[in-house]
Amino acid sequence: MKRYALGIDYGTNSCRSLLVDLSDGTELGSTVFNYPSGTLGILTDPRDPNVARQNPQDYLDGLEAVVKGALKQAREKVADFDPVQVVGIGIDTTGSTPIPVAKDGTPLALLPEFKDNLNAYVWLWKDHTSHAEAAEISALAAEMRPQYLAKCGGTYSSEWWWSKILHLRRIDPAVFASAYSFVEHCDWIPAVLTGNTDPLTIKRSVCAAGHKAMFNAEWGGLPDKEFLAKLDPMVAELSDRLFDVAHTADTKAGELCSAWADRLGLKAGTAIAVGAFDAHMGSVGSGVKEGTITKILGTSTCDLMIAPNNKPLADIPGVCGIVNGSVLPGYFGIEAGQSAVGDIFLWLVHNLVPDSYGSTPGDKFVAMEQAMSQDKPGATGLMALDWNNGNRTILVDHRLTGLLIGQTLHTKAHEIYRAYIEATAFGALTIINRIEEYGVKVNEVVNTGGLSIKNATLMQIYADVIGRPMKVSRSEQTCALGAAIFGAAAAGAGKLSDLQSTMTATREKVYYPIPDNQAVYAELYEIYRTLHDAFGTHGWCGHLHPVMKKLLEIRERQRA
Amino acid sequence: MKRYALGIDYGTNSCRSLLVDLSDGTELGSTVFNYPSGTLGILTDPRDPNVARQNPQDYLDGLEAVVKGALKQAREKVADFDPVQVVGIGIDTTGSTPIPVAKDGTPLALLPEFKDNLNAYVWLWKDHTSHAEAAEISALAAEMRPQYLAKCGGTYSSEWWWSKILHLRRIDPAVFASAYSFVEHCDWIPAVLTGNTDPLTIKRSVCAAGHKAMFNAEWGGLPDKEFLAKLDPMVAELSDRLFDVAHTADTKAGELCSAWADRLGLKAGTAIAVGAFDAHMGSVGSGVKEGTITKILGTSTCDLMIAPNNKPLADIPGVCGIVNGSVLPGYFGIEAGQSAVGDIFLWLVHNLVPDSYGSTPGDKFVAMEQAMSQDKPGATGLMALDWNNGNRTILVDHRLTGLLIGQTLHTKAHEIYRAYIEATAFGALTIINRIEEYGVKVNEVVNTGGLSIKNATLMQIYADVIGRPMKVSRSEQTCALGAAIFGAAAAGAGKLSDLQSTMTATREKVYYPIPDNQAVYAELYEIYRTLHDAFGTHGWCGHLHPVMKKLLEIRERQRA
Repeated sequence: MKRYALGIDYGTNSCRSLLVDLSDGTELGSTVFNYPSGTLGILTDPRDPNVARQNPQDYLDGLEAVVKGALKQAREKVADFDPVQVVGIGIDTTGSTPIPVAKDGTPLALLPEFKDNLNAYVWLWKDHTSHAEAAEISALAAEMRPQYLAKCGGTYSSEWWWSKILHLRRIDPAVFASAYSFVEHCDWIPAVLTGNTDPLTIKRSVCAAGHKAMFNAEWGGLPDKEFLAKLDPMVAELSDRLFDVAHTADTKAGELCSAWADRLGLKAGTAIAVGAFDAHMGSVGSGVKEGTITKILGTSTCDLMIAPNNKPLADIPGVCGIVNGSVLPGYFGIEAGQSAVGDIFLWLVHNLVPDSYGSTPGDKFVAMEQAMSQDKPGATGLMALDWNNGNRTILVDHRLTGLLIGQTLHTKAHEIYRAYIEATAFGALTIINRIEEYGVKVNEVVNTGGLSIKNATLMQIYADVIGRPMKVSRSEQTCALGAAIFGAAAAGAGKLSDLQSTMTATREKVYYPIPDNQAVYAELYEIYRTLHDAFGTHGWCGHLHPVMKKLLEIRERQRA
Repeated sequence: MKRYALGIDYGTNSCRSLLVDLSDGTELGSTVFNYPSGTLGILTDPRDPNVARQNPQDYLDGLEAVVKGALKQAREKVADFDPVQVVGIGIDTTGSTPIPVAKDGTPLALLPEFKDNLNAYVWLWKDHTSHAEAAEISALAAEMRPQYLAKCGGTYSSEWWWSKILHLRRIDPAVFASAYSFVEHCDWIPAVLTGNTDPLTIKRSVCAAGHKAMFNAEWGGLPDKEFLAKLDPMVAELSDRLFDVAHTADTKAGELCSAWADRLGLKAGTAIAVGAFDAHMGSVGSGVKEGTITKILGTSTCDLMIAPNNKPLADIPGVCGIVNGSVLPGYFGIEAGQSAVGDIFLWLVHNLVPDSYGSTPGDKFVAMEQAMSQDKPGATGLMALDWNNGNRTILVDHRLTGLLIGQTLHTKAHEIYRAYIEATAFGALTIINRIEEYGVKVNEVVNTGGLSIKNATLMQIYADVIGRPMKVSRSEQTCALGAAIFGAAAAGAGKLSDLQSTMTATREKVYYPIPDNQAVYAELYEIYRTLHDAFGTHGWCGHLHPVMKKLLEIRERQRA
């Protein structure tokens, strides 16, 4: 008898289900639910563009809709499909996306008295109101607990757990005082499904805790109270109502409670896996293994690697996080990423591409890809820095901006588009180089996300710049697929590594580096690194006079 | 009885006449003739984008058309107008635009045997085929005759006289051998009108000779034969068939010959002034005087000042040229300029502005001006370098390219447009600062050219950045007006300074600096200079890490 697992992937604007066959990864059903609240699911504040909150009710409504939707599709596809064949459910979400909750685990936002207070809602990962607190935490940790920072790339971010909690304490002490505890989005959904939302006993994700809450077994879990008390005594006290242990996502969080079993049309008792973040589960769904970096190429990127946890692993400066078990049990998860990739292309197409390329963004992209297809590397004479949204890895500095150099009176929009694609490739290579410098070998790249499927020009440029084969994940829903794999593992349906190798694959088309292009990109990368270091690092001091000349020289050579 | 003068202005793509009343500068007639040959009047070579030649026949056909056109308009406007009232004719042209000519002064291009050889045609100022020869001349002069370079900003250009002649000698010795002499476009037209085109006796312009042919009375005229022989013995020999003296434009070149008098419908014997370059006559037509810099704001700019020649004037590094009498007799002319100003805006609007701003370039400019009108200085967070076409002054380096920094995911096209306007203003200020550093005070700026009339936003930004009142010349045809003034002076119709003050004026609207804006632009200019020096000078070595942060800080302050 066939067995299936369900993965639920909570994104920034919507959630999505994926129902998968455990024997070969066949996808039987997948539906999407767009969060109805706010703008594209995000609650904003017109007075402060940094505010980004969400309504937890959207998560619950979405959960029901996408599970039912997937089951309906499965029934249509497979005549004898029976929901009892669904053995496990896994959950991934964005993060750090903390939810202030009452003693019973109910999000404050769902209580009538907090209905009109955005601070009681879910603090979405991209909420940037807490930048002052992030700087404060970084400074305090640098002084008192440098080890905390070493695991998260050297700087604590405004997008993360403690920054947000501390900011809430500062700006809205009443909501803070009403919050018995805080729960990550990825911990709350599994808790809801099991019917136990008690903040003190729910199983917390080591992925979320390790990457965002400075949780590490090395120092006994969360940051110590002495440290937290320096930030705020009330935050130190809160830590008693948080957690001491955290779990890998193959752990069973519990079993589906009857109330939600009825609501979803599934069998009560179905295994619910501990949650994790989307990119980490996406990495598993992309088939991550030693020596492989997985890249989710979306509006931004999230790059993940693993390294065995039975050998020591150096801290890697500027890499977002190294957490034991955050991707796969038995391995350190190494997380890096670029703050904007697809977002830069979208910005360009929406703001700086004339209609001579087409009347819609889609048409413009197609025409620009076509227009650049005959150009050799370096023939544009352009060079860009991919920092329109700051730099997450390896500079960990959101107060950086874009740069474009080499424009003449003949520069065309598609040449600028190419320069930005190349810039994001150079940024990706910079991450890989940094990881390799610290002893983790990168042999291949498995890509997932829209750009990897739709943009062959980009993929070839990435292969040429990065100098490694670019593979593309077979599934278009690697995050949900990863979640489903963990659902199956939590159900005891097989060994995790077996489930992963059975259920994941890459596509036949592989982009291999073209040696001639590689050689030119190696020259161009030197220029990128010069600009990167000049504008991005404190210490740099040097000459830039050769930059424009060198770009012109390469341009002339490549156009000849 | 009224007296009039005619100015003929030969531009890059067309020529234009202006018939002016000597008593008050009233403009009676002005028509344009577009050169019919080639593309927009320019003969190009598909194999080499550096080639830009012209057909001398276009100049003759244009001369007839625009003079007759202006006379016709004058007759329609003034009932008792009589062409005999036209007392003098002045000529301005682009340059250096040398013409290889036969012994009788006929351009080789007009001889049947050279009809199909572009090398025998007029070498338009923007012909850039001679860059290797320019470098060779610069190197040789630096070694043998540093004084030659000191007067032309330190570098000899591929656009100039000797580079072109030497290049012709190298690439087409047959045409070179057939050229008895070479004549600047601005010397050839007056010669034609006088009926004497003998290269050995025509009156040459000191403006052309001094700025482009390294002519200077200090060293006895043109470069010496020892120097020229090092470049090429044949070029040294040619110098015997060039000239030893050169004249200011108030000098009478001769009188209108009867053949051309008949052809144009003017009186034989009318005074013909010695020619000069367009910007220099435009400066006179803009009312240049001590302490005033005149700026022709077009696709590129030409900035001119004067300083009395009875006091020593230091060489000014990076300024295109200092020539005694090139603008007005009795004064050194100081020439500077920016390689691209309007051209940058045109490049932007044609290539990077989406149709949401409008369907035509004109509509897009209007919409962008409107969109930026509420923005404060620095609110874009952007900074550009105005080097899309290299940098003429003060770096004298055409192998520089554009730069834009500060882009985010929210940057709009009109913000980039503003950044480029500001960049050209910073470039203009850099020129003024350099001139002032060498002892020539700049109190006011008189602008002419399309941008000064049409773009109020730009003019206010210039006032705020440059920190001086921005005036705008009354006439829209300042080059032709200057030529007419010299025509009148050559005719003895009055003292040159009187003619200039009677016939020129600025408009009522003056753009004054706004102190608050000036203060912010002073901060931004520091950043511009840092980038300018970092990318544009050999010697610079320093830190750029503060650049993006400072732009963000100013942006936040100005948006608050």
